[in-house]
Amino acid sequence: MKYKINADRLMRNLFEMAKIGMNENGGIDREFGSEADAETREWLKEYWNKNIGLTAATDAIANLRIQRSGTEALLPIVMGSHHDAVPDGGKYDGAMGVLIATEIMQTIAENEIKLRHPFQVISFTGEEPSPFNLSTLGSKVICGKLKKEDLFDCRHRETGELLSDAIGKVGGDIAQLEEARLQKGAVAAFLEAHNELGGYLEEEGLSIASVSHITGIYREEIRIYGEANHAGTTMMQNRKDAMLALSELALKIEAAAKEFHDPNVVATVGYVKIIPNEANIIAGEAKAIVDIRTYKKEKLEEILVKIQAAVKEIEESRKVTIKRKELLNQPCQKLDDEIRAAIGEGILQTGEVKKQMISMAGHDAANMGLLTKAGMIFVKSVGGMGHCRQEYSRKEDIVKAADALFYTLIKLDKELD
Amino acid sequence: MKYKINADRLMRNLFEMAKIGMNENGGIDREFGSEADAETREWLKEYWNKNIGLTAATDAIANLRIQRSGTEALLPIVMGSHHDAVPDGGKYDGAMGVLIATEIMQTIAENEIKLRHPFQVISFTGEEPSPFNLSTLGSKVICGKLKKEDLFDCRHRETGELLSDAIGKVGGDIAQLEEARLQKGAVAAFLEAHNELGGYLEEEGLSIASVSHITGIYREEIRIYGEANHAGTTMMQNRKDAMLALSELALKIEAAAKEFHDPNVVATVGYVKIIPNEANIIAGEAKAIVDIRTYKKEKLEEILVKIQAAVKEIEESRKVTIKRKELLNQPCQKLDDEIRAAIGEGILQTGEVKKQMISMAGHDAANMGLLTKAGMIFVKSVGGMGHCRQEYSRKEDIVKAADALFYTLIKLDKELD
Repeated sequence: MKYKINADRLMRNLFEMAKIGMNENGGIDREFGSEADAETREWLKEYWNKNIGLTAATDAIANLRIQRSGTEALLPIVMGSHHDAVPDGGKYDGAMGVLIATEIMQTIAENEIKLRHPFQVISFTGEEPSPFNLSTLGSKVICGKLKKEDLFDCRHRETGELLSDAIGKVGGDIAQLEEARLQKGAVAAFLEAHNELGGYLEEEGLSIASVSHITGIYREEIRIYGEANHAGTTMMQNRKDAMLALSELALKIEAAAKEFHDPNVVATVGYVKIIPNEANIIAGEAKAIVDIRTYKKEKLEEILVKIQAAVKEIEESRKVTIKRKELLNQPCQKLDDEIRAAIGEGILQTGEVKKQMISMAGHDAANMGLLTKAGMIFVKSVGGMGHCRQEYSRKEDIVKAADALFYTLIKLDKELD
Repeated sequence: MKYKINADRLMRNLFEMAKIGMNENGGIDREFGSEADAETREWLKEYWNKNIGLTAATDAIANLRIQRSGTEALLPIVMGSHHDAVPDGGKYDGAMGVLIATEIMQTIAENEIKLRHPFQVISFTGEEPSPFNLSTLGSKVICGKLKKEDLFDCRHRETGELLSDAIGKVGGDIAQLEEARLQKGAVAAFLEAHNELGGYLEEEGLSIASVSHITGIYREEIRIYGEANHAGTTMMQNRKDAMLALSELALKIEAAAKEFHDPNVVATVGYVKIIPNEANIIAGEAKAIVDIRTYKKEKLEEILVKIQAAVKEIEESRKVTIKRKELLNQPCQKLDDEIRAAIGEGILQTGEVKKQMISMAGHDAANMGLLTKAGMIFVKSVGGMGHCRQEYSRKEDIVKAADALFYTLIKLDKELD
């Protein structure tokens, strides 16, 4: 490659963006709809404008984009990721992908590299599960998986704020949601760089890898209705304790996932709410979200059957009522062969071994894969850390991913029509 | 008895006070430090002033009092309870005791009944466990169990508000806390009416009963430190899931209490906080409060030994760290024999059977018992409900308790020096 991205500038931008929403422990608090989300958007728009000379467009779901024209009348090649973070999250998740795409765009602009296709950088809205109980929100709207009627009543689970208000505050407009939707084939290709968020690359001794599949993600809400009563005066055998019912259920869900002894089958109860949540009151209600990930539909179904059996058993033994509600059932997604081949070549160019892996995390690329050829490159996360403030990717690995994606872009620009 | 309390007025006042902080489900949200707490105080002070002609005094911990003079130079007989409520709590818990005392005072005032002792009505500050992790706050300060140095750093567990600011807002002043403290013997007697909060009276077919003992209450905070990590990319066997560790521990605590098969031994995990509490992140931390009640110290100690064994086992199997911290260890309190006899006579006067019972709920009377002769009367709670919006006591039972306490007061006024 004749041109190189500016590694120092890329890292500088990464640490600059990480300042927005950084808490006292060094974690990033930049949830969708937060002030830090809004501030990051302003930072990005200003950076793009000042350093690349392109003005950002904000679509109806508030995805941010810049686009450089191509020399031919072709569909755009899109590259990017998201800028929101999980609470107390890391500096790399999402931000790195947006800033690698930004760095590639800046390198192209300053070297006046001519591409046949328009080249677009995107930062998606609300990729992480937010208090609105949604994830990959921006890419789901683009690909038509979420429509206006799905979002109209949607509210922040703590504050009750309407999603439409949160979107409005960052420049979107849910009433115009159809305008954000892209038709299948409206984009020539989608590319995303992301930190791995797991320990596979480290265990294999690799810096970067191409992603072959993105795991299926199933999520359900469990509500347990017991009876709030006095913690002193209610005898043990007369209790309908929703917290204890949830405890039993969570342990049974763990057991169901563990039985497979398969690194690509996992289940988690990460969100829990106890009502009324007072030391001297027996829990009257418990709410939890269960997240199950598999690459095979049959394995998910086996787990769900076991959960239902546990629910029945616990309802009977603890005299509680348990309601289950599916929140998400996203099938496993295979990424595009042609793009995977191009990313593989890009990886070889950096001196690394060409290797593919399953992503056990969901990504915007899974939704973009419904519209167009999509590919992803993963960067090693030291210690396999993900979704936590301890996340760390080495500079040399980040730069390799950027170089590989830059190569992939140039190659696809030549090959794709 | 020549004079009768006004039953309709008492019930009217009870329903009037219940309007303050009533939520859409009919539950009472009137936690210590809330706006509803402040509003209830204003309501009480105005009621006392307008209908009894006495101006309320607010002490340094913001307990509210009115006092009517006696004909002799004797110590006051004090009667009352508290006006705060657990979240989504009932209309009777606390409020009923304050309003029965208020009704007796009003009856005395309008009939110009002469008592030898000064008669005082009190409404205590923060009897229920509040977000400041304290309970029976007002009576603990009065009897010297909580001192200035215990409260200086105390903060609201969610908002971080200082307790001193919360107390300041309702008219107290933590800097002057010693002034609120009473010396042993500074009060002639303390009497409290309260709803039972359990099912004993209903099971025994009784309307009211005198309380013989108030249960010991032990409370500890448990913090579990695991590792927050990605719910997709972290294999099941590599997890340090704080929520699952807590689930196991909560079930073992339940088992330890159940083993006694004793209605007067109970243990509860009613407060739980998961961090970061997101569907796609393994719980990195869990915090819980365990509440254990027994009338025998040895039984508590047996349970604590079992909890420690479970903690060690779970720390090892789940690779988490568990920290325990005692928050409260209040021994079982026997109430005064002379007062119990007087209440027993008062109960007989109402046509009910004289009966005594152990209270498995803590009450301000337990603290007042450290200062003076204390006694309590319980009113049946239909269905044994307590600390919940479903609490209900029948008018006839409430009136019986008020009549019995009125009789007790008149009798003690004659007998006590």
